[in-house]
Amino acid sequence: MTPKQGEIMARLIRGETMESLHRGHFIVVDGDGVLIRSAGDTGFFTYMRSAAKPLQALPFLTSGTADEYGFSDEEIALACASHSGEARHTRVAELMLQRTELSEAYLRCGTHLPFYEKEAERMMRAGEYPTQLHNNCSGKHAAMLATAKHIGADLATYDALENPLQQQILSAVAMMTEIPVSEIAIGIDGCSAPNFAMPLSAMAKSFANLVSPPAGFSEETQKACGRIVSAMVKFPELIGGSERLDTMLMQAAEGQIISKVGAEGVWLCGILPSEKYPKGASIALKIEDGDDKRARPVVAVELLRQFGILSSEDLKDISPMPVKNRRGEIVGHVEATIKIV
Amino acid sequence: MTPKQGEIMARLIRGETMESLHRGHFIVVDGDGVLIRSAGDTGFFTYMRSAAKPLQALPFLTSGTADEYGFSDEEIALACASHSGEARHTRVAELMLQRTELSEAYLRCGTHLPFYEKEAERMMRAGEYPTQLHNNCSGKHAAMLATAKHIGADLATYDALENPLQQQILSAVAMMTEIPVSEIAIGIDGCSAPNFAMPLSAMAKSFANLVSPPAGFSEETQKACGRIVSAMVKFPELIGGSERLDTMLMQAAEGQIISKVGAEGVWLCGILPSEKYPKGASIALKIEDGDDKRARPVVAVELLRQFGILSSEDLKDISPMPVKNRRGEIVGHVEATIKIV
Repeated sequence: MTPKQGEIMARLIRGETMESLHRGHFIVVDGDGVLIRSAGDTGFFTYMRSAAKPLQALPFLTSGTADEYGFSDEEIALACASHSGEARHTRVAELMLQRTELSEAYLRCGTHLPFYEKEAERMMRAGEYPTQLHNNCSGKHAAMLATAKHIGADLATYDALENPLQQQILSAVAMMTEIPVSEIAIGIDGCSAPNFAMPLSAMAKSFANLVSPPAGFSEETQKACGRIVSAMVKFPELIGGSERLDTMLMQAAEGQIISKVGAEGVWLCGILPSEKYPKGASIALKIEDGDDKRARPVVAVELLRQFGILSSEDLKDISPMPVKNRRGEIVGHVEATIKIV
Repeated sequence: MTPKQGEIMARLIRGETMESLHRGHFIVVDGDGVLIRSAGDTGFFTYMRSAAKPLQALPFLTSGTADEYGFSDEEIALACASHSGEARHTRVAELMLQRTELSEAYLRCGTHLPFYEKEAERMMRAGEYPTQLHNNCSGKHAAMLATAKHIGADLATYDALENPLQQQILSAVAMMTEIPVSEIAIGIDGCSAPNFAMPLSAMAKSFANLVSPPAGFSEETQKACGRIVSAMVKFPELIGGSERLDTMLMQAAEGQIISKVGAEGVWLCGILPSEKYPKGASIALKIEDGDDKRARPVVAVELLRQFGILSSEDLKDISPMPVKNRRGEIVGHVEATIKIV
């Protein structure tokens, strides 16, 4: 099925001339799920990828796991993170495993060098090799392991779709996105866990529900949503890390938003309830070519500026984003081309 | 100016579901410049980037520089290369500088770690740092320096558009692309040298002229085109390197093509004269979002298969391209969606 055409959302200008362009889709809804703005195809069907992490963390709280083992807000934040593998992240991931008396060997996320390039280079020059704790998803996996242990699910297959833990997560995703499980397509994420494909509009809905859980949700779910949002707002540096989009956006927005990127150009943002939006609001963005290095950041910053969350002075080095040559001289820039207000 | 819509050329499938897609533009012309096939916008206006290197090398030959200093075919190949910074590349770049009694310090391309990741990691683990010789453009810059010296141009500003060397290169690009200098937009490349933006159709024309120079070209130019093409065909491993697209395509095509990638999703391919195309042919491709890691390779391989240059057995690991999780398990693939024959 060919999706509707994406709208041009960002372009790279070298000298005076456009060199490349990025198309995408976004939707903004208020806390009741009412459409505020959109561009491209709001039904664009794709994976949430790591933007699903705050939803994947719900059973960790609703099952009583976090309370049983005394997990802290920092650890809950890391469960929702795509962290940069810096010491401040791996240390928290290790503590999470220690709480449940499990070791790094139980993780099934695999290894990769830290996302933060300076740390990756430091490690290589120091003769170090990454462990699974450095995997950007190690907090999510540590929370999954803890939950599996708490509910008595098999630890060796905690990442299998058939595992009761993953079935609980799938149900939570369906509840939050308000689409039936049968309409969610399942694929395997980079970290081996099941991931969820659905229309972009459903992703927006899930973050609106997260920042402003409807009265129909159980008390446990409402409390879990609240704790996830407050943990993310309290520890933005754990959600990403140095020079990472989620961290920079949340720090600049000073408590007004939760931000979560997903691989392949996905970005979900929950806008906390305010005078303008008493039940909050949310944004779901997909750069259709999967870009996450330049189109996603410039568009995300520009969207938050146009919604009055950020000012034109905030994150000026991110949007427009300078393009430099190998001598460090600026030879162009990447700019957002969206206009929504 | 908004370009015409790109055609969907590649898509990433995770599980059973499309996750991302890439649009692009291509044009195929025969040796007389007659259109054979196209998709998207053949007038898409963008930079050639490193795909211009075989053209930028022309004054190096037509000025008599290469003959005067006795440059070898290997060195001419490296002048046309975006090499991977492996020892076999930096060694040749160093020899090129030695021929003209110049040192690495004269280069103005800047430094970066080798494109070949295994070599980059090896260097870091060995405590080594890259020099300008490791820059993928060091061969081009060494040839520029040699030519500047030979024609008596200022060596310190050899990369400035005003330098007589760069003016000679600009004239060569205009001649080969058959568009006036006034219609070529200039920007600064990643390596600090001037680069050239023009319609995709003009890029295709330039490679058709390269593999089959028209009778109207001077004898020096015709000879220079021939020597550049034969040097590239003879030393495909110098044009890119280990696991690099140009090298893999030229090796698989066994002398039937010259292949040159450019940053931001550009690929130019010259098909040498054969029974089917007595004056040769050429392909110009631009992935509009600038992708060069997955859409460009799968589409390039598929185009060459559909033109009968490669078989379906060639480069099976490149197209379709497996997508793996962090444990090395295949969880999806990137596939070309173009059909031209």
